[in-house]
Amino acid sequence: MIARKSRVLVTGSSGLIGGVVTRILGDKYALSGLDRVPADPAADIPITRADVGNFDAIRPAFDGMDAVVHLAADAGMDAPWESVLPNNIVATYNVFEAARQARVKRLVFASSNHAVGMFELDEPYVRIRQGNYRGLDPATFPRVDNTVCIRPDGLYGVSKAFGEALGAYYAEQFGLSVVCLRIGTVTRDDNPTREVRQMATWLSHRDLGHLVDCCLSAKGVRFEIVYGVSNNRWRFWDITHARRVFGYAPRDNAETHRTGE
Amino acid sequence: MIARKSRVLVTGSSGLIGGVVTRILGDKYALSGLDRVPADPAADIPITRADVGNFDAIRPAFDGMDAVVHLAADAGMDAPWESVLPNNIVATYNVFEAARQARVKRLVFASSNHAVGMFELDEPYVRIRQGNYRGLDPATFPRVDNTVCIRPDGLYGVSKAFGEALGAYYAEQFGLSVVCLRIGTVTRDDNPTREVRQMATWLSHRDLGHLVDCCLSAKGVRFEIVYGVSNNRWRFWDITHARRVFGYAPRDNAETHRTGE
Repeated sequence: MIARKSRVLVTGSSGLIGGVVTRILGDKYALSGLDRVPADPAADIPITRADVGNFDAIRPAFDGMDAVVHLAADAGMDAPWESVLPNNIVATYNVFEAARQARVKRLVFASSNHAVGMFELDEPYVRIRQGNYRGLDPATFPRVDNTVCIRPDGLYGVSKAFGEALGAYYAEQFGLSVVCLRIGTVTRDDNPTREVRQMATWLSHRDLGHLVDCCLSAKGVRFEIVYGVSNNRWRFWDITHARRVFGYAPRDNAETHRTGE
Repeated sequence: MIARKSRVLVTGSSGLIGGVVTRILGDKYALSGLDRVPADPAADIPITRADVGNFDAIRPAFDGMDAVVHLAADAGMDAPWESVLPNNIVATYNVFEAARQARVKRLVFASSNHAVGMFELDEPYVRIRQGNYRGLDPATFPRVDNTVCIRPDGLYGVSKAFGEALGAYYAEQFGLSVVCLRIGTVTRDDNPTREVRQMATWLSHRDLGHLVDCCLSAKGVRFEIVYGVSNNRWRFWDITHARRVFGYAPRDNAETHRTGE
């Protein structure tokens, strides 16, 4: 007997992260996509063309799904309220509610480090983001983890904090299994050298795919918040929680990637 | 020389809590109100009749204000999304943004214990809310404080968590001084005997007025979250943080109020 593949709906499947996820996980899961715009022709998955801001238009796509990966959003960290409200707040409510109605079991929500971005104004992160590592020991400086208070650095980050709060509610009230991924910096060319902050914040494509896989396949999850970041020497963010809860085992490190090691 | 009174705009001034606040603080502050509906005729303050969901309609009322107390909301803890979205989410953004544009110095946001309401499913709170105090020592059981994670018990609570996240952003990004009050149970007749949970959650009118006064007059506040609850023997929530930061000194206790002591 061959176990059937889990059916997973990916919202924002035509975006940068959606493209990485569908490419890496397309063999293991039965993926379908949901997006306003068409995907790269290379992405060989069925796509519902609809706006996540329109509940009635997206609702049918959730029927029969085992899990949802909700990536659709205005991903601009400086996005104005006029875009954040429909694309990140209303859309995220629509996705959680559609998942509940369709009895989806797990929802992986693309949150963001920007929900807690103001920590980067504090020591030692303020220096690390500028590449000033003097006197810092990566083995010992404290990292921002899943228990810190909410400190958004923009309306985008506020919308992600909203999504996490909504996720906590849907998990506790309705039994939907929810994972909030505070995703770091994913680049189109999978290269962390564009700015020095990425030495801390980079998430490689293969670590991203592996992490989403971990989040989809883990058992017994009610509600978790984890950071999506590669095993960068200078990362601000904790990955021990993701390792413990999901078995996340990143293979990349911005520093060694840069030097070609 | 007589110091001029601080000018304070109270949104939702015609509501239950708005009425208590304007009655108790009307002498100390130069209050004005903002509400869709007229106030009790006894409330002798100027009122702008407008919907906080309409930014352009409310914006002028913020000019010249030193502080804002933002109470306007759908206060139903079971409010549906169709009401929470305009009345609690859009409206709260409008109020923060109008305050920023008008260079208001402090904003007191009526958050709610429902932002963390799911803690009431945990021991010992689940028993306390039912009046089962057996084996519990009020001097030692742990209380839910300002550092706990967000656990909303409804979309209403989610909207309050959104407002807190927005407040943190406006505080850190724009220097607006923000206090989030997680208000307990305020009753029209100022009586805590309606249900046994109120032995834990009651906030008397005079303690409410005193706490809002504390929040308006404290110096050097960037961003704080505090609980609004009287000094009830069986309160779930911490008041030591409000006492330390704002000098909050509640005079009422649901238990002794009930027994007429």
